[in-house]
Amino acid sequence: MYSLGSRMRFHLFGKSHGPHVGCILENVPLGMNISMDELKKDMDLRKPKDGIGTPRKEDDDVEFISGVKDNVTDGTPILMLIRNKNVDSSKYTSIPRPGHADLPAMIKWKDHDVRGGGQFSGRLTAPIVAAGSIAKQMLLPAGVRIAAFTRSVGSVGDDDARNINDAFVSREYATRACSAGLDDLMRNEIMSASKEGDSIGGIVECVVSGLPIGFGGIWFNSLDAVLAKAVFGIPAVKGIEFGGGFGLTKMKGSESNDQYQIENGIKALTNNMGGVVGGMSDGMPLVFRTAFKPTPSISKEQRSVDLSVMKDVTISTEGRHDPCIVPRAVAVVEAVTAIVTADTAICEGLI
Amino acid sequence: MYSLGSRMRFHLFGKSHGPHVGCILENVPLGMNISMDELKKDMDLRKPKDGIGTPRKEDDDVEFISGVKDNVTDGTPILMLIRNKNVDSSKYTSIPRPGHADLPAMIKWKDHDVRGGGQFSGRLTAPIVAAGSIAKQMLLPAGVRIAAFTRSVGSVGDDDARNINDAFVSREYATRACSAGLDDLMRNEIMSASKEGDSIGGIVECVVSGLPIGFGGIWFNSLDAVLAKAVFGIPAVKGIEFGGGFGLTKMKGSESNDQYQIENGIKALTNNMGGVVGGMSDGMPLVFRTAFKPTPSISKEQRSVDLSVMKDVTISTEGRHDPCIVPRAVAVVEAVTAIVTADTAICEGLI
Amino acid sequence: MYSLGSRMRFHLFGKSHGPHVGCILENVPLGMNISMDELKKDMDLRKPKDGIGTPRKEDDDVEFISGVKDNVTDGTPILMLIRNKNVDSSKYTSIPRPGHADLPAMIKWKDHDVRGGGQFSGRLTAPIVAAGSIAKQMLLPAGVRIAAFTRSVGSVGDDDARNINDAFVSREYATRACSAGLDDLMRNEIMSASKEGDSIGGIVECVVSGLPIGFGGIWFNSLDAVLAKAVFGIPAVKGIEFGGGFGLTKMKGSESNDQYQIENGIKALTNNMGGVVGGMSDGMPLVFRTAFKPTPSISKEQRSVDLSVMKDVTISTEGRHDPCIVPRAVAVVEAVTAIVTADTAICEGLI
Amino acid sequence: MYSLGSRMRFHLFGKSHGPHVGCILENVPLGMNISMDELKKDMDLRKPKDGIGTPRKEDDDVEFISGVKDNVTDGTPILMLIRNKNVDSSKYTSIPRPGHADLPAMIKWKDHDVRGGGQFSGRLTAPIVAAGSIAKQMLLPAGVRIAAFTRSVGSVGDDDARNINDAFVSREYATRACSAGLDDLMRNEIMSASKEGDSIGGIVECVVSGLPIGFGGIWFNSLDAVLAKAVFGIPAVKGIEFGGGFGLTKMKGSESNDQYQIENGIKALTNNMGGVVGGMSDGMPLVFRTAFKPTPSISKEQRSVDLSVMKDVTISTEGRHDPCIVPRAVAVVEAVTAIVTADTAICEGLI
Repeated sequence: MYSLGSRMRFHLFGKSHGPHVGCILENVPLGMNISMDELKKDMDLRKPKDGIGTPRKEDDDVEFISGVKDNVTDGTPILMLIRNKNVDSSKYTSIPRPGHADLPAMIKWKDHDVRGGGQFSGRLTAPIVAAGSIAKQMLLPAGVRIAAFTRSVGSVGDDDARNINDAFVSREYATRACSAGLDDLMRNEIMSASKEGDSIGGIVECVVSGLPIGFGGIWFNSLDAVLAKAVFGIPAVKGIEFGGGFGLTKMKGSESNDQYQIENGIKALTNNMGGVVGGMSDGMPLVFRTAFKPTPSISKEQRSVDLSVMKDVTISTEGRHDPCIVPRAVAVVEAVTAIVTADTAICEGLI
Repeated sequence: MYSLGSRMRFHLFGKSHGPHVGCILENVPLGMNISMDELKKDMDLRKPKDGIGTPRKEDDDVEFISGVKDNVTDGTPILMLIRNKNVDSSKYTSIPRPGHADLPAMIKWKDHDVRGGGQFSGRLTAPIVAAGSIAKQMLLPAGVRIAAFTRSVGSVGDDDARNINDAFVSREYATRACSAGLDDLMRNEIMSASKEGDSIGGIVECVVSGLPIGFGGIWFNSLDAVLAKAVFGIPAVKGIEFGGGFGLTKMKGSESNDQYQIENGIKALTNNMGGVVGGMSDGMPLVFRTAFKPTPSISKEQRSVDLSVMKDVTISTEGRHDPCIVPRAVAVVEAVTAIVTADTAICEGLI
Repeated sequence: MYSLGSRMRFHLFGKSHGPHVGCILENVPLGMNISMDELKKDMDLRKPKDGIGTPRKEDDDVEFISGVKDNVTDGTPILMLIRNKNVDSSKYTSIPRPGHADLPAMIKWKDHDVRGGGQFSGRLTAPIVAAGSIAKQMLLPAGVRIAAFTRSVGSVGDDDARNINDAFVSREYATRACSAGLDDLMRNEIMSASKEGDSIGGIVECVVSGLPIGFGGIWFNSLDAVLAKAVFGIPAVKGIEFGGGFGLTKMKGSESNDQYQIENGIKALTNNMGGVVGGMSDGMPLVFRTAFKPTPSISKEQRSVDLSVMKDVTISTEGRHDPCIVPRAVAVVEAVTAIVTADTAICEGLI
Repeated sequence: MYSLGSRMRFHLFGKSHGPHVGCILENVPLGMNISMDELKKDMDLRKPKDGIGTPRKEDDDVEFISGVKDNVTDGTPILMLIRNKNVDSSKYTSIPRPGHADLPAMIKWKDHDVRGGGQFSGRLTAPIVAAGSIAKQMLLPAGVRIAAFTRSVGSVGDDDARNINDAFVSREYATRACSAGLDDLMRNEIMSASKEGDSIGGIVECVVSGLPIGFGGIWFNSLDAVLAKAVFGIPAVKGIEFGGGFGLTKMKGSESNDQYQIENGIKALTNNMGGVVGGMSDGMPLVFRTAFKPTPSISKEQRSVDLSVMKDVTISTEGRHDPCIVPRAVAVVEAVTAIVTADTAICEGLI
């Protein structure tokens, strides 16, 4: 359940309430030098910034327990631990919070402790980002680069095409927007929801450049299929679309088909397919968008049920929550994409 | 690559150009009586109807080679064969068709024969539908029902909420729309594209009722994650969203959260989550939408490249193509959903 | 359950009582020319010969339903069917035969039909041999050769070291012994048991030459571990040992260790390890022995229980049985070894 | 590579030379109370005792980093760490030790550091024993008990049948023999080898009682097949046999077949099959023997090659080695058996 990958295997563990979260990354090549600077940058990318996220503070220092010595991999499984400093001190509850995993978790496992989200907590995305950073470093020498950015927050966003360089620019802005103007607007959207004790959703877009034509599998091992599975593993994701995505459903084939021409080999004139046809790369940048719902934790009053007495109640979720998860989710989308891509690259002999 | 499932395993094989397509379905319980009537209905659901699909005629009779005797499973792997009667007689080509898997397939496997789509052909969805029919029959005694319908074709469609019964009604209409009015409009949209030598996309919506609260896994085994992987295995899929999906990204948490009340146990007041939170069922109907791109085969002229001489060329794809794949894809979306759900149901001890 | 392999996947199906047995072999490289002569030789190797096996006659013609055209693989899953001509016509019974899978099968699945062995039947080893033949043909260009022979039947056999060429010589003899002398003795042993209405066990030894140093995995993916799993999948196997095997347990380390010297690179002076240390090839021929119990079907009277009335009874198994399965098992041991080795070779980039 | 299990997953990590070894055990049921006393007993069972093993001292305290709180499982993956206190301080070498994994490891991964056995070290069996202890505790309430003992050391041993209670008695003796008399003889055998700077092999026998008839899979998921794979994952294992094993190869079917009678249900009169037919339990105790080669590390001089200069050399392995690994391997065989059995029990709904 907590695993990804076929040849490079990723295993996640931990919960928000325990002392640590962490992961194992298996089958990373022997002798790889891991840049701890890059790792720190990626971990920082996931942290709330400039007051638009949760005030909960976590160092997110990654401790290598096994598999890495003096920053170099030794070919054995890599065990990473990240300490939980700021553990939720709320009390045990029998009232499921709307929009959370609480209800099914409480029904499925009696006495399930949902404080802080338990094993569903976004806190577990920290080790995902750590593993993704290593995966990105594995891919870079093969010319494969991965970057995500915030495409929209609530109704704020545009439809401009963005390439991998634009995506990297977004690191400069707290909202991970691609421009200062959008960053301002998105920040306002988030702060406005926050002030009302509410939250807001948004879209993360991810770009992968440098994949060779033919990269990926077919049918149920299609590159888009394995990516979709990994992306839906991220909490709060409610949709994914590649290239033109749902917009393609309103098009004619003569509009949507990416036609080919000769240009340093063969190249598509457009990228409506988002770089993937028949489950494999067509040589264009891989582009997909991921829909994140609004953070379910809000202080506004909501209806729920006290399961211990089966009575209607109202609740409001106090505490330190991100009013919009999207800016932090950018790092997580990048990470799962990197893990899937590196695993596929090993299968295909690219790395 | 050609497989789905963890405990009930599905293995696909064949290509459009060979004598057969088919599949193996492993670990179906011993002694199950398979309704051949239901199977035929499901196979018919995938056939083009009333002149809005390809004129290619296939009987799609399912031959049980192993694992079933006198319509009863014997507990061993079920091998099903479906004959290809109407094999493509086009000539070998070195020109990739835009929007198809041709380009990556030709580059990855030299001399790859793309006639009729090869192993990427929609023809392989026939055995998927056959296996899905058995999966649906496995689920029915547990009270789980699955039905899909056409939500939109091009710009034609509405936003009305539809339940499982509405979805079943769509079987009456050739476009698999939920009403006679929509069926007419969609048919016009398809015929109009067809007359221009063009094609059109659309959206399939799928509903699963009867899942118990807590059904599904977490993280990378989330119910939505494994469904997304299976759905992206279907050719021409470019997006998937659960419940409010991409629409949720513009909402506030106070709007999107499904609040709970007591009503025959506990029940959500809305279904923005599409029946899944934290990767598990919340007891509401599972609802998701799948974006299908326009059929890439069109007779309109398009630019491509002749790979054998690396020269720019133009092509038009003559032949017998569905101008809109959506009405036939309804059966396929149902089928992969059934396969994934039955496999999960076995893992969870539901069946 | 019916599958082997991680990248080259093998899926088995069928039962002795149905019209066919067969298998799927997935991920065999595109464009490989399959020698049907070699395939026929391998299928013949599994047939009873010169009156020392069952009089049941089967052609064992392999029909390629999918994945192969004009003897050349097309890169899609290969489906092979083998017809059962000579189906068991015995009556349904509620009395488990000693030494067979009958008892657990009858208890686990009520009304389980054990005639002819059902899905446990040695008949299913025919498609294993077919897949193994393709695997051997995949390995040959990489210099990897696989051959097995009969090491002993009952008490007849010797302890002489045998190399891959000796193993190939055994094809000339009906018992698959390595010499005419042993063949005579083994034949007598088998005929003597047969005349008494009894059966006899024996040992199959298998040799793999040409594996590069380092070939294989570690811990639970050790080459010996994955081979052992595959070999115990063969009916009637009760033991496996590599190199000196159980004999090593009586040795001192100074006797058992294979010391190294320079000889065209590095080479071990002995092969007590059977070519595998730490789960990987040490460059010496891989050598292992497999223990086959006597065929459980005998016409001598035995005690059993009629499960329908829970009464003690005696039975004798009439019919066409091999008094010794070992000569035919040689082909099967070779085949599973080839499947595992080819899969590992793909994982390691050797083929 | 480092994993076992299909539904209860086990992932191993670490090396002898690093600060820790450990493992993850995934899908242990929520709310299980882990007896730390039992865990300590199992860890102690693996420790050298009474001077017949290595003088290297390790506490082998198991630290639960995640998944267990106040000795109770929380349903998330269990991460266990065991500190390496006594790290090998030998120097880097380019001379492979005979009988070790050194040669293939050095050739496969250049600059591979083989000190202390690296990732092949028996040190990694400590977390296997820890996970096995939890697995045994999972099985006990279902009436399934597992115990192993030393069947032989060198030429010392007998052929008496031993049941599960005899096996438990062996815990009293340092050699894990089943009687004081055998313990004395085996101890002498070990000390005699030790004094010569040599080592000695032996056989571990394992008994599992309480498995219901039908427990296990078929073909490549046979109970014996999955056990064999796990057992060959243990370093130094060179053979495995179930029940009569290799001895069955010299028998007639009328001798080897376990006949049935009515006795509290149905029961076999003998247990030549070792409790498994057709891959499933026949209700008799599961019994198998595992061959361990002599410890490869000996101080006697041996021939090898210095790979850095490709010259013949002689070496002797100084240091703290077990002259016979068998007494300590008893705990490890028990552990992998428990992990495989618990995983199968989950798949079959037994626990």
